[in-house]
Amino acid sequence: MNIVLVGLGLIGGSVAKALKQNTSHRVLGMDVNEDVLLDACSSGAIDGKASLADVESADLVYLSVYPEDILAFVRQYGKRLKPGCILTDACGIKREICHAVEALSRDEKGAWCAPYQFVAGHPMAGKEQSGFAASDPSIFSGASYILVPGSASQEAVETVASLALQMGFGRVVQVSAEEHDRNIAYTSQVPHALACAYVLSPRCRQHQGFSAGSYRDVSRVANINDVLWSRLFLDNKQCLVDELDELLRNLQKIRDAVDREEEGELRRLLQAAAQIKREVG
Amino acid sequence: MNIVLVGLGLIGGSVAKALKQNTSHRVLGMDVNEDVLLDACSSGAIDGKASLADVESADLVYLSVYPEDILAFVRQYGKRLKPGCILTDACGIKREICHAVEALSRDEKGAWCAPYQFVAGHPMAGKEQSGFAASDPSIFSGASYILVPGSASQEAVETVASLALQMGFGRVVQVSAEEHDRNIAYTSQVPHALACAYVLSPRCRQHQGFSAGSYRDVSRVANINDVLWSRLFLDNKQCLVDELDELLRNLQKIRDAVDREEEGELRRLLQAAAQIKREVG
Repeated sequence: MNIVLVGLGLIGGSVAKALKQNTSHRVLGMDVNEDVLLDACSSGAIDGKASLADVESADLVYLSVYPEDILAFVRQYGKRLKPGCILTDACGIKREICHAVEALSRDEKGAWCAPYQFVAGHPMAGKEQSGFAASDPSIFSGASYILVPGSASQEAVETVASLALQMGFGRVVQVSAEEHDRNIAYTSQVPHALACAYVLSPRCRQHQGFSAGSYRDVSRVANINDVLWSRLFLDNKQCLVDELDELLRNLQKIRDAVDREEEGELRRLLQAAAQIKREVG
Repeated sequence: MNIVLVGLGLIGGSVAKALKQNTSHRVLGMDVNEDVLLDACSSGAIDGKASLADVESADLVYLSVYPEDILAFVRQYGKRLKPGCILTDACGIKREICHAVEALSRDEKGAWCAPYQFVAGHPMAGKEQSGFAASDPSIFSGASYILVPGSASQEAVETVASLALQMGFGRVVQVSAEEHDRNIAYTSQVPHALACAYVLSPRCRQHQGFSAGSYRDVSRVANINDVLWSRLFLDNKQCLVDELDELLRNLQKIRDAVDREEEGELRRLLQAAAQIKREVG
């Protein structure tokens, strides 16, 4: 396949390297930053810079850019893509993106009028650094790759799924955009909000010498990309607020049990948590 | 030195193994569980079971048992220890323990009347399993060892400090019991309360396939020993409640900024957090 990667940051760069390492597809790249494109070319992460003609003849276009730039790309290049081209993304929220891409791909009667098929995706991998320099295909190893098929053909979905497995992901999970966003609010967005809230305590500046694994783990992702994550939080507002409220309630229960010295209630809460963790891992 | 370890759980067992690996001290053990003592003897983690005579002739007694059992030991054996014996502990809270041991060690006029010197300690190491079977001296590698000298002599403090470094700890920090408890509420107790509150969400049961490092890190210590941690939480009540309130406030701010779609405020909060994390690590 001729693959065009749009955006060569942490995820796009890692995808590029994984594809070059593990497949024989032709991999071309686009990035707003020319230095990144140069680095990607000279390190062999991509076969070259994608021209407009390359975009138009691509078999698969992989978008790993900010949510609004996904839509900007679809508006600008969508109609010029080759018939049957598979368009996929790596955005961390799916309802907003899927609805917006659908809206750009259907005519006023609701019929699909775009040349491409859209298979929304979310590689469940990352790390606390960002940018091409941090990209590393080993972050994909054994991780989960989520696909939201929408109205794409089974064939297109399977093409993206097998590409994910070739990149080193351990499994592919297909879900609805709604289910994705609810789960991701819990598994990814809450921990990021939490890490930030945690380090905002004035005590944080005295942690050296008093911290071990627990501090390190909770605070790990606090060095956050505020532009990207504000967008992701707001684009998943209701799911995230619901999960944060759930966490605030449970944390308040533990706090109140301590404050009221209710040892029985406190033990019950900790026991229930330990039981869940043992069961679900 | 003749060292007696009281309690051969995760920490006591790891201390035993570290002392046998890295020093030539004679290491004897006591544990309420005879099977654990047998395992510790047969695996070479200790040189043998400590008799009452061994306790009475020990140069150093290391208590890694539950807070109330530390006091029970001091009540039962304190007066029988050899003059100059160093008594030290590994309990995760220090004000309660230090005050209680001091109270047991002074006469009605407030003069020290115990044969031992008490050097309170807290090895900042652990893992999510507990018990002798999980003990492993490598958890100490490079970690911080906190000492609360109280009224112990500088010589006694230095003996414990150098033992900690021989066990593989990376540094020894001396602080007051108050400073210890405030910092530990933040660096250790809040993350444990948080892990429990986090997995209590009904969404937790659906995390498989949607989780990566963030979920794993925040939930890691949720499989908690509820008896031990309820005790530690209650024994450090005010410090912990203060820090939980701080976290609840900051988390609420992030939640409200998302709920009100205040992108500027949300970015400001995330930016502030990222800045702190970059500065303090």
